[in-house]
Amino acid sequence: MLNQKLKIGIVGGTGYTGVELLRLLVSHPNADVIAVTSRGDAGMAVAEMFPSLRGYIDIAFSDPETTNLADCDVVFFATPHGVAMNQTPALLAAGTKVIDLAADFRLQDIAAFEQWYSMSHSCPDVLKKAVYGIPELNRAQIKTANVVANPGCYPTTVLLGLAPLLEKKLIDLSAPIIADSKSGISGAGRKASVGTLFAEASDNMKAYSLAGHRHHPEIEAQLKQLAGNDLQFIFVPHLIPMIRGMLSSIYIKLTESAKQLDLQNLYEQRYANEFFVDVLPQGVLPETRSVRGSNHLRIALQSQANGYLTVVVVQDNLVKGAAGQAVQNMNVMFGLEEKTGLNVVPLMP
Amino acid sequence: MLNQKLKIGIVGGTGYTGVELLRLLVSHPNADVIAVTSRGDAGMAVAEMFPSLRGYIDIAFSDPETTNLADCDVVFFATPHGVAMNQTPALLAAGTKVIDLAADFRLQDIAAFEQWYSMSHSCPDVLKKAVYGIPELNRAQIKTANVVANPGCYPTTVLLGLAPLLEKKLIDLSAPIIADSKSGISGAGRKASVGTLFAEASDNMKAYSLAGHRHHPEIEAQLKQLAGNDLQFIFVPHLIPMIRGMLSSIYIKLTESAKQLDLQNLYEQRYANEFFVDVLPQGVLPETRSVRGSNHLRIALQSQANGYLTVVVVQDNLVKGAAGQAVQNMNVMFGLEEKTGLNVVPLMP
Amino acid sequence: MLNQKLKIGIVGGTGYTGVELLRLLVSHPNADVIAVTSRGDAGMAVAEMFPSLRGYIDIAFSDPETTNLADCDVVFFATPHGVAMNQTPALLAAGTKVIDLAADFRLQDIAAFEQWYSMSHSCPDVLKKAVYGIPELNRAQIKTANVVANPGCYPTTVLLGLAPLLEKKLIDLSAPIIADSKSGISGAGRKASVGTLFAEASDNMKAYSLAGHRHHPEIEAQLKQLAGNDLQFIFVPHLIPMIRGMLSSIYIKLTESAKQLDLQNLYEQRYANEFFVDVLPQGVLPETRSVRGSNHLRIALQSQANGYLTVVVVQDNLVKGAAGQAVQNMNVMFGLEEKTGLNVVPLMP
Amino acid sequence: MLNQKLKIGIVGGTGYTGVELLRLLVSHPNADVIAVTSRGDAGMAVAEMFPSLRGYIDIAFSDPETTNLADCDVVFFATPHGVAMNQTPALLAAGTKVIDLAADFRLQDIAAFEQWYSMSHSCPDVLKKAVYGIPELNRAQIKTANVVANPGCYPTTVLLGLAPLLEKKLIDLSAPIIADSKSGISGAGRKASVGTLFAEASDNMKAYSLAGHRHHPEIEAQLKQLAGNDLQFIFVPHLIPMIRGMLSSIYIKLTESAKQLDLQNLYEQRYANEFFVDVLPQGVLPETRSVRGSNHLRIALQSQANGYLTVVVVQDNLVKGAAGQAVQNMNVMFGLEEKTGLNVVPLMP
Repeated sequence: MLNQKLKIGIVGGTGYTGVELLRLLVSHPNADVIAVTSRGDAGMAVAEMFPSLRGYIDIAFSDPETTNLADCDVVFFATPHGVAMNQTPALLAAGTKVIDLAADFRLQDIAAFEQWYSMSHSCPDVLKKAVYGIPELNRAQIKTANVVANPGCYPTTVLLGLAPLLEKKLIDLSAPIIADSKSGISGAGRKASVGTLFAEASDNMKAYSLAGHRHHPEIEAQLKQLAGNDLQFIFVPHLIPMIRGMLSSIYIKLTESAKQLDLQNLYEQRYANEFFVDVLPQGVLPETRSVRGSNHLRIALQSQANGYLTVVVVQDNLVKGAAGQAVQNMNVMFGLEEKTGLNVVPLMP
Repeated sequence: MLNQKLKIGIVGGTGYTGVELLRLLVSHPNADVIAVTSRGDAGMAVAEMFPSLRGYIDIAFSDPETTNLADCDVVFFATPHGVAMNQTPALLAAGTKVIDLAADFRLQDIAAFEQWYSMSHSCPDVLKKAVYGIPELNRAQIKTANVVANPGCYPTTVLLGLAPLLEKKLIDLSAPIIADSKSGISGAGRKASVGTLFAEASDNMKAYSLAGHRHHPEIEAQLKQLAGNDLQFIFVPHLIPMIRGMLSSIYIKLTESAKQLDLQNLYEQRYANEFFVDVLPQGVLPETRSVRGSNHLRIALQSQANGYLTVVVVQDNLVKGAAGQAVQNMNVMFGLEEKTGLNVVPLMP
Repeated sequence: MLNQKLKIGIVGGTGYTGVELLRLLVSHPNADVIAVTSRGDAGMAVAEMFPSLRGYIDIAFSDPETTNLADCDVVFFATPHGVAMNQTPALLAAGTKVIDLAADFRLQDIAAFEQWYSMSHSCPDVLKKAVYGIPELNRAQIKTANVVANPGCYPTTVLLGLAPLLEKKLIDLSAPIIADSKSGISGAGRKASVGTLFAEASDNMKAYSLAGHRHHPEIEAQLKQLAGNDLQFIFVPHLIPMIRGMLSSIYIKLTESAKQLDLQNLYEQRYANEFFVDVLPQGVLPETRSVRGSNHLRIALQSQANGYLTVVVVQDNLVKGAAGQAVQNMNVMFGLEEKTGLNVVPLMP
Repeated sequence: MLNQKLKIGIVGGTGYTGVELLRLLVSHPNADVIAVTSRGDAGMAVAEMFPSLRGYIDIAFSDPETTNLADCDVVFFATPHGVAMNQTPALLAAGTKVIDLAADFRLQDIAAFEQWYSMSHSCPDVLKKAVYGIPELNRAQIKTANVVANPGCYPTTVLLGLAPLLEKKLIDLSAPIIADSKSGISGAGRKASVGTLFAEASDNMKAYSLAGHRHHPEIEAQLKQLAGNDLQFIFVPHLIPMIRGMLSSIYIKLTESAKQLDLQNLYEQRYANEFFVDVLPQGVLPETRSVRGSNHLRIALQSQANGYLTVVVVQDNLVKGAAGQAVQNMNVMFGLEEKTGLNVVPLMP
């Protein structure tokens, strides 16, 4: 397999997750991007829209109507919600695997999906077999999955930030878990909009979606699964004037037994073999730029006087929070070395 | 007059020049903004769209179709090109003065206007009487004008930067005048657009419109008038990742007689009585933030070894480059103290 | 008094709070800044260091050793911690009032002061009479105070954000109060440092001081006073790549009786007569730029499903968080209309 | 050679060019960084200072006094000016090649060096044999060089931007060549300084060093060599609020014969085989982010009406402008494929 090239299709290649997939895949030794579709820009050379790719990719965007994606080994959907679920059954029938970077396969609770995304789900059977794609949590299932739901950007920080505690039942769930998350503005996507103009969003910040963000039910469902228990979850996202980067500050109440443990050591052990998850030394706090452009995620812990613990997690929202994790999932699904094509040193400064 | 309140209308109040006019006028002791029109947002409170104005303005946007602007003493047009010229004749007939922040009255050469703005001019007679609104150059005419063409943002920097030399015929016009100008991104306006999204425009810069920018003919015409002569002009604008601010670096060849003069002193004398134009001491260079939010413009000179002079000029593109100069023009037109309402200390840092 | 000019001294005028005091005071109709001291830059014109002030202030920095501040009606200390307490007793003896923008008079608990600031307190008697300077909470005491401790930047957001609840005992103090606060980088001060260089701090963010920030004991002490009760407080500050602006997201557990109340109305009533505190309409969230350069602070509330409430508060860290509040305190101390000199419309964009 | 690992030393690894060398070299298949010296931080793990390198490099900074650099195949100097020239003769004697990223070997005119850098040159003999390291201009000499002077950041943009014209004598040298250059702030280095703090440099720009920048004599000397003629050169650098990126707008007068030529085609031919130099299609202008983090440099041309030509050039100042070009030079010096380790796709957005 290692010398083989996977034939890859990308549906919806003109957004930030699409172009980030391209950045990673054009350097991936086992990847051959054979089609990038775009309804609006079919015919335009990919490198004309994204001059950063000049010299790295020669193909043009193709029309989704006429592109035969069934020739691909794997298709990435970097589309608005609702596109992937319509095309996935046919691709699966043709033997093509699917990695969806939108939300179509993230929520196993169909009612919740339909409430939060205001559309009915077109393939509940496929959804049931879809695997939630965080390799550090679900590697075994991803290996054999045909459909992977790539997580939302915020969930990866919260879930990897709390998994070591939840797996050992060290959080006192009588108090809510609170995630105060901050995202760079690329998370809002590459679409014309007044609110994310430079002159609006620069030198400025805000909280948003306090009354309910779509990642709330996604995170909550996964937290419950990790906890094996019901729990309460408060989630407040914020928009920060940086291009890339995400930081979640998570506040939880420890159980009495947790207070007796060396939690720093617990985290270090849990992630000792995970190349992309880095537990910082006690007392060191992560900056978002320490992962800029890379698939790494860094975690720091700080106990509070009153039996609470603060967990701080950073990632690049477009890489470990989106396209990088998707490539990592692809590597797992096809038996490649997991860090293939993802061995990119963060860009600093 | 000093205790009187001018009744003021603003057409097109939802863009950056519109909201900047509001910022200045709500604190202006002789201004009473009685109408702000918006085709798309009529009925919405102005302070709902712009929370920075909460507590400072109570009115809502009104429908341009039903708003009687003829009651105003003066109407500002902060609209796309082509709107002001259609409404100005009726306003003038009603005794209302007009200050247009768009280009409708900037180019006296109608053929040039029609070429650069792709529309025919609807009121050439009004255009003929319109005055180009830089008080430091045309104060006498502005005093008696009924229509003032507020200059484009770039032109003010170039024209005030070179006026002392051109008025004295100290530029060797056998070489082209070169203006390499840099603008903050608010200059691109408050309209949804991919190219000026934070994630596109931040940590990034570019030159644009090298094949021809609309301010080229405007600057060139005014330069020729100041020079009393034909000349060659090269203009290259750049987009810089800052909200506000504009800096022009201007390169000119000095005449032989100019090389013998104390040009620093010439500039200081020329602008000695101009509150808004500041000639910096020899050797000091201006930063754009030194004028942030204010109507000041600062100039520095540096002689080059080879008989050339570099002139560096900064202003806030939304103030002296747009709304502030418009208010300054209003003050002149109505006999108010010229700095009324414009005595705003720059915001630093 | 209204036509009188107060004679004002500023000790330590070269930092951001110092220059911000100058920006506000040079336009204040009752203020006459007669001395600005700087140990390192004595003799340099203030406007040479800060060209934004050219034309607004003519004096030079003076040597603190030789400047007679006792002539002043009021002296502002914009100095490192420990300077004000050494000079205050002599100033008071001369009849000069003192507003300290550092921490010397913020903590009534001397042991806490000495622990967090690593210095002994030189004038405990003066400290006892010092008033904590948030006019919306302590207006009556400020009116008659001779020494005002201007609060730290973070505390103002948390205290004004929670006062309506604490005053009515509507917070269930069995759970900790959690403040996740975000500050623009000017909060780190105007001193040479690698960590706050543009190339380090731009396009980047981080949490800091998780193990203990000096504003923690300050906020906690004031919260307890407002609550009339002991309580637990978790405080995590973050550094955000913007020049100015501060946003605190505060998470509290409501009492059972609080859940029955219209908290939106409670806040609106509490601050109905406070010009600088703005409770946003239900569902509207504040951006930091909506207060840029102004003394306003805006608050929004959002109830969470599980009996928690999120309070979001924004201010300009250099204005309501420092120099603006100091001028507001001065106005109160000298019987001036409270918004004199502070009627500055926020700069947007 | 291709399977061999070069033993590499870096002197001065704590600045931006140092850490950028590390980012590139830890992924370079033929590089083994065996020593990174730092006078101030000896003993600290490199990845402790630069967490972006966690997992990629295990060594600590070593003391320059006790580090035996003579074991290296090549030593990079990422130091202040004056360090390399003192150590180079001994390294050469030991058979170690030297690539200096400072200015010690850039100016063949020793008097000019001593004037601009205020120090005497300690090894003029070595200087004479040093090669100016732009592979696209001097590849043959670099192949056999033992000492390469890596160019300043600005010079690479101007020299590669004009080489096709100068080599063919297509510039009318009776008019000065004008380079108006803009640099991201990382160009000012990673040293504590007030002027480059985020709160000073963000949302702000300025021209600097108009009276003379050290890259002026460097560029001028190389231009003259390319022209085979004397010429006049005006250079004005500007500081732009972005971390990385450099854009030069160059204004030149064409000869009569040049006006008859297809200059677009001339440039495309000149650089057809240069992987790192990209001539954009006619009418397309480059953005700095299109090369962010990469060793590419992009060029666009625009003829002006009056016989002038504007050349716009972008690069990443830390890569093609510094560390990337240094690695490219290393590859050439050691007979490696020139793009080894430099095949990094630009980071966009």
